[in-house]
Amino acid sequence: MLQKNLLVHLKSDVASFSIQARHLERIRQAFPGVNLLEAGGRDELRHLLGEADWLLTWQFRADRYELLPRLEAVFTPAAGRDWVPADPSGRVRNFYGRFHGRIMRESLLAMMLYFNRRLGHCRENQNNRLWDRNALDGSSSLFSQQILIIGYGAIGRQMAELIRAFGARITGVKRSREGFENDPFAQRVVTFDSLEDELPLADHVVLMLPGGPRTEDLFTQRHFQLMKPGSYLYNLGRGSCYREEHLISALRDGPLAGAGLDVFREEPLPPSSPLWRLPNVLITPHASAISREYLDLYLEEWIGIVWETWGE
Amino acid sequence: MLQKNLLVHLKSDVASFSIQARHLERIRQAFPGVNLLEAGGRDELRHLLGEADWLLTWQFRADRYELLPRLEAVFTPAAGRDWVPADPSGRVRNFYGRFHGRIMRESLLAMMLYFNRRLGHCRENQNNRLWDRNALDGSSSLFSQQILIIGYGAIGRQMAELIRAFGARITGVKRSREGFENDPFAQRVVTFDSLEDELPLADHVVLMLPGGPRTEDLFTQRHFQLMKPGSYLYNLGRGSCYREEHLISALRDGPLAGAGLDVFREEPLPPSSPLWRLPNVLITPHASAISREYLDLYLEEWIGIVWETWGE
Repeated sequence: MLQKNLLVHLKSDVASFSIQARHLERIRQAFPGVNLLEAGGRDELRHLLGEADWLLTWQFRADRYELLPRLEAVFTPAAGRDWVPADPSGRVRNFYGRFHGRIMRESLLAMMLYFNRRLGHCRENQNNRLWDRNALDGSSSLFSQQILIIGYGAIGRQMAELIRAFGARITGVKRSREGFENDPFAQRVVTFDSLEDELPLADHVVLMLPGGPRTEDLFTQRHFQLMKPGSYLYNLGRGSCYREEHLISALRDGPLAGAGLDVFREEPLPPSSPLWRLPNVLITPHASAISREYLDLYLEEWIGIVWETWGE
Repeated sequence: MLQKNLLVHLKSDVASFSIQARHLERIRQAFPGVNLLEAGGRDELRHLLGEADWLLTWQFRADRYELLPRLEAVFTPAAGRDWVPADPSGRVRNFYGRFHGRIMRESLLAMMLYFNRRLGHCRENQNNRLWDRNALDGSSSLFSQQILIIGYGAIGRQMAELIRAFGARITGVKRSREGFENDPFAQRVVTFDSLEDELPLADHVVLMLPGGPRTEDLFTQRHFQLMKPGSYLYNLGRGSCYREEHLISALRDGPLAGAGLDVFREEPLPPSSPLWRLPNVLITPHASAISREYLDLYLEEWIGIVWETWGE
């Protein structure tokens, strides 16, 4: 039986990101030998850190690793390394969440269908008690459309699996095609060299790029201008991959028909941002993974990781 | 080679429902022996009707069949018999569209995800430049939800195929289970006898009932009251299956969290209807099948029907 001290500190302003009794129960049931230590506040956390073999947390500072000789592994539900950087020495193992796609793909589809079915326009007509069937004229369905997913990793692929069920054609863009030669979801997986050829073909362009210096401003004004007239852009990755003034001009003067945006260069998005008031923009507050099932999904993944890595 | 006079009269206020040059071209290409007669206005239609072997139309009166001895078949893209009643004598063959599900399921998913992802609330926050991640707290994802489709025919089944791809559990309700014992999409198909047992279990209830006396007021106040607290109702069938005052009270006082409504007892929905102003209602103007691809899909189905029925 696994004998470990697991220190859990998963608290957030977002209730779906805070650990509940049912989650702790699930851990106890899966690993009866694991000694669960719960840290409510920061003082308690500091006090208990020295005893922990494993830490499950939202945030961790890179300079702490070397001060905690007992620590073997740090787990975080987050997909990106923004709040839990990897141990620079490589001694402590780091595990990041990979389950987010199941929730995020529903958020993406909600946005795509909101635009395709002109729900913003319908909602406005509803406010005016206006029955106008031509509000939907010229609308298109996903089964006849082309989707481009830029940043075709684990999450992008789970998105593609679902978009594919609608009958849409999908192209994924990745740094390397290795392991993606015969992807079951995207018709084609290409590298960034081909991005400029793909942009004019897509009805919906989905940005799923991680943060960091390698992706900063990667999507330039030229890329926006290559997009198909009347197409839509979605960003559920990180807000640093383009300069927002380029996005705003593509939304105001074309070629974009609209954008569904969940992430921004500065978060919370400042009240002064013109994005709030563009009529063809749908804003969600970095919430594409927020759902009641978030930590349930994560814990099933976590249990699998522990089994695979430490066995029983 | 099929030698028939095909009279086409497909005009509508909705552009997607009006035949275009590309559709006539498709017919000519599929059946070079068919003589296409196009009726622009009503006078032309009356003038040409006597020469038609086949008629492709939106509307036809039951008393006309006996006046047109040459007429063999009347085709309509509509799914219901509301505008083209069947020939009472049975001499002329009637064919109704069955392709609508591919478009309508995207409209249904747009509504479900609009509510699940709280897009109405997000849009309001956006108007107030308010960044509130708790707007999504307590939201649920389709993969963990239960869906009840009442009226599980050809369209309901196409909806189930797509909802299933999200991972949701589906129950279909039908008059008879014959031929649906091992449905690949719904986990269970039950008859109307079981409706009251199923209603309390569903997170989303989809009404897909046809019009007519057999379904009028079929969904009663008791049915609304049996629904799960916080659940959602969708109607993409016909507005006559409940009394709207019962729906309104379930939306105002519970148990419903919201409703996505595409059809109404009176259409256009009168400006005096309280439905327009309920904050938890999303109204679309009998538009769930409106999409640019509507007649393209129908013509592929029509070509199949002609092949199967008349061969070459």
